[in-house]
Amino acid sequence: MPGTIGIFDSGVGGLTVLTALRERLPSQDYLYLGDTARLPYGSKSSTTIRRYALKAAEHLFRHDIRLLVVACNTASAFALPALIKISPVPVLGVVEPGVRAALAGGARKVAIIGTEGTIRSGAYQKAIRRLAPEVSVTAAPCPLFVPLAEEGWGDHPITDQVAEIYLRPLLETGLEAIILGCTHYPLLKPSLTRVAGPDVSLIDSATAVTDAVIRLSGGSTTGRTGTGRVVIHLTDASDRFRRIARAILGSDPKNLEVIDL
Amino acid sequence: MPGTIGIFDSGVGGLTVLTALRERLPSQDYLYLGDTARLPYGSKSSTTIRRYALKAAEHLFRHDIRLLVVACNTASAFALPALIKISPVPVLGVVEPGVRAALAGGARKVAIIGTEGTIRSGAYQKAIRRLAPEVSVTAAPCPLFVPLAEEGWGDHPITDQVAEIYLRPLLETGLEAIILGCTHYPLLKPSLTRVAGPDVSLIDSATAVTDAVIRLSGGSTTGRTGTGRVVIHLTDASDRFRRIARAILGSDPKNLEVIDL
Repeated sequence: MPGTIGIFDSGVGGLTVLTALRERLPSQDYLYLGDTARLPYGSKSSTTIRRYALKAAEHLFRHDIRLLVVACNTASAFALPALIKISPVPVLGVVEPGVRAALAGGARKVAIIGTEGTIRSGAYQKAIRRLAPEVSVTAAPCPLFVPLAEEGWGDHPITDQVAEIYLRPLLETGLEAIILGCTHYPLLKPSLTRVAGPDVSLIDSATAVTDAVIRLSGGSTTGRTGTGRVVIHLTDASDRFRRIARAILGSDPKNLEVIDL
Repeated sequence: MPGTIGIFDSGVGGLTVLTALRERLPSQDYLYLGDTARLPYGSKSSTTIRRYALKAAEHLFRHDIRLLVVACNTASAFALPALIKISPVPVLGVVEPGVRAALAGGARKVAIIGTEGTIRSGAYQKAIRRLAPEVSVTAAPCPLFVPLAEEGWGDHPITDQVAEIYLRPLLETGLEAIILGCTHYPLLKPSLTRVAGPDVSLIDSATAVTDAVIRLSGGSTTGRTGTGRVVIHLTDASDRFRRIARAILGSDPKNLEVIDL
């Protein structure tokens, strides 16, 4: 498929989505924009989140993308309708793909975990009620999960204990699936799996949105051969962001440019 | 003393400084600016931190302040010279007052804890070498402390364990004082005191900068009688920030206005 896929996130967590996409669509070109100068979005108000998301999308449109993937759950939850309204290209958020993946697995008792913003938005809860009104939904904000992931403590006794505190009340309802409603959370899978146990599926936004992109591209994962070009734009590039990006990508990010929105 | 004191922080943590100032100088007028739309500064690059701090200061200058207190340690560490250069009024950061308070207590083995940005800046370390070259200094970034404070876990077994991990290597050097190099950290005092033990003083920026303001005001804590006016400007006012502000101030913030920088 010709053309560049634009991926937008508030920070570098959305690189988990870029990585998942590249595994399935390696010949594709990608432009990733992380709004690191203004992250996190998760603790901020809906007005501010929408304003930031629109600015970021305009930057990607100027780079002639053929599809916009909103990898940030908070931005997907609050700004998707506003983004669709101004977008000259198709827009995919992470909320609906995550919900569809949970339902496809047959879960009838589902929990959503995410930032305070994402949970407060009710976007996941609404999507489940719309797509499968018979499914029961609970939700919990987990504000410490992003800092724990960024500290590199995805497999750590402290993260296990924090996850116990956040998830225990949900798990006691007899859950079948937890939607990881934040791009950082897959980094915590070792701890989350220990706490949630083997009977609860953890639904990863990155995998779910990749399936949606492939569906939108007519189901083909082949097409052009070779390796596509990946460009990363960040609004701030501190050592910390570079380190986290390296941890997610498995190598130093190439073609990294600091831009001003 | 007539005129308004301007206080600037990246978020609402600096309200600990406002609270300390009001206790000692209650008749004074205050204008507090929290750049909540762009917080945290601590993980971002020096260029971005300076750009944000200058924008914030310009806003306060337009409101005719007579003194600028930079309550944010990261902004103090990176942007103080730039702020002093453009400021029409005296500027006080939190770095030097914190260092002076530690030295005044007689400590000869001092540690600094703060955000990654503050520690990386070396601002505290340089101030100690300049003011007391004989004092030995160690430093540690504590990235999880702000999220733990914002979660309200300042007196919590998980915070005790995180503090053990961050502080143990420092404590083993036989410390006498720890400078809390971040406005949020006083909220963690119960846990930090347990981990540091009774022989280590915890130096609070809020108290230290208040002493500096009083010195700059000629040592007087009286002057006008009555209660001064407190106005709070935030660049974003999510429920989360309001909740944290309430926890620090002990009541709902009055005269709160959301502004755009």
